[in-house]
Amino acid sequence: MAKTARKKASKKDLILSQASRMFREKGFPATSMRDLAESIGIEAASLYNHIQSKSEILQEIIFRTANDCNVHLDTIDLGRDSIRKVESLIRFHVQMMLERFDDYCVMINEWIHLSEPYLTNFTTQRRNYVQKMEAIIDEGVRNKEMKPVLPYVAMLTILSSVRGLEFWHRSEKKISPQIMEDNMVNHLIGGLKRN
Amino acid sequence: MAKTARKKASKKDLILSQASRMFREKGFPATSMRDLAESIGIEAASLYNHIQSKSEILQEIIFRTANDCNVHLDTIDLGRDSIRKVESLIRFHVQMMLERFDDYCVMINEWIHLSEPYLTNFTTQRRNYVQKMEAIIDEGVRNKEMKPVLPYVAMLTILSSVRGLEFWHRSEKKISPQIMEDNMVNHLIGGLKRN
Repeated sequence: MAKTARKKASKKDLILSQASRMFREKGFPATSMRDLAESIGIEAASLYNHIQSKSEILQEIIFRTANDCNVHLDTIDLGRDSIRKVESLIRFHVQMMLERFDDYCVMINEWIHLSEPYLTNFTTQRRNYVQKMEAIIDEGVRNKEMKPVLPYVAMLTILSSVRGLEFWHRSEKKISPQIMEDNMVNHLIGGLKRN
Repeated sequence: MAKTARKKASKKDLILSQASRMFREKGFPATSMRDLAESIGIEAASLYNHIQSKSEILQEIIFRTANDCNVHLDTIDLGRDSIRKVESLIRFHVQMMLERFDDYCVMINEWIHLSEPYLTNFTTQRRNYVQKMEAIIDEGVRNKEMKPVLPYVAMLTILSSVRGLEFWHRSEKKISPQIMEDNMVNHLIGGLKRN
């Protein structure tokens, strides 16, 4: 990449990460391009050298985060047993929540503000994602690694628990990310396993 | 109660339950007293025969719901073992989410819009509530009924899972409330128990 292109790319990254933080804190509707420019320290007009619109910023944040989720799900080693697949999913989502906090929260909370065709496209991707997750749990039930749980309820319990880490982020609890992750895996996997 | 007083009480109940539904659907800030009156089919002015302000409605909804949670927690049979206490808590919260959906969602999502002194009062009550819940789990760990979990993480996992039922409400999944409750208890209690 030429130097100018590289500089432009890094400025765009800065815009996306700052926007992600503001969308998470204030919500998409309440964040203006003017506020965003101000918080980065550039002119509002020059934002548009990097990005077309506020909607485009939201799309980029959500779709790149969704890509990471999809790639993880599709590359889970199929040879592994179902319990380990679900454990890998829980660890991945906890890590996303802890390490990519802004992006992950924007994806799960602000997707409703996507405009078409991205809105429909995103909800379809999300449906496929949870169906694949449920299929893994269903397989675990059928091969008797797991208790006879309903895959939909187990999937909801797992993803909701991860979502709850949003509260931990805001609390002052001194618990390390690794201990948090291990505790959550222990609880959620322990509850699925056949004794 | 005299007939007029009874009639007034039932109109107030209607106002509170309709407000609860609207606060859940649109959020507290976006719901106006005019919209509320309109949806009940009365004049905006006559709303004020029953209630002082929109803030007072929010307070009543949240504090009566908090009362129910506090009463349940304080009346759990202390003679029971810790696992059964936690099971009772999970079942209670799932039932609140299923049967008192509007009130419960308003409490967990809209409390931030309480005005003082109610805001501070509510957050203190909530802190006490989760501390009592954590103490029950801590007791279960110490008496070796439960695995060595961190009570804070287990509490967060349980309450977040219940919160996730908000999505189930909006989905078209044909799962009965009882099966939902049993599955969630099975998963969340199973994960705490020592094998």
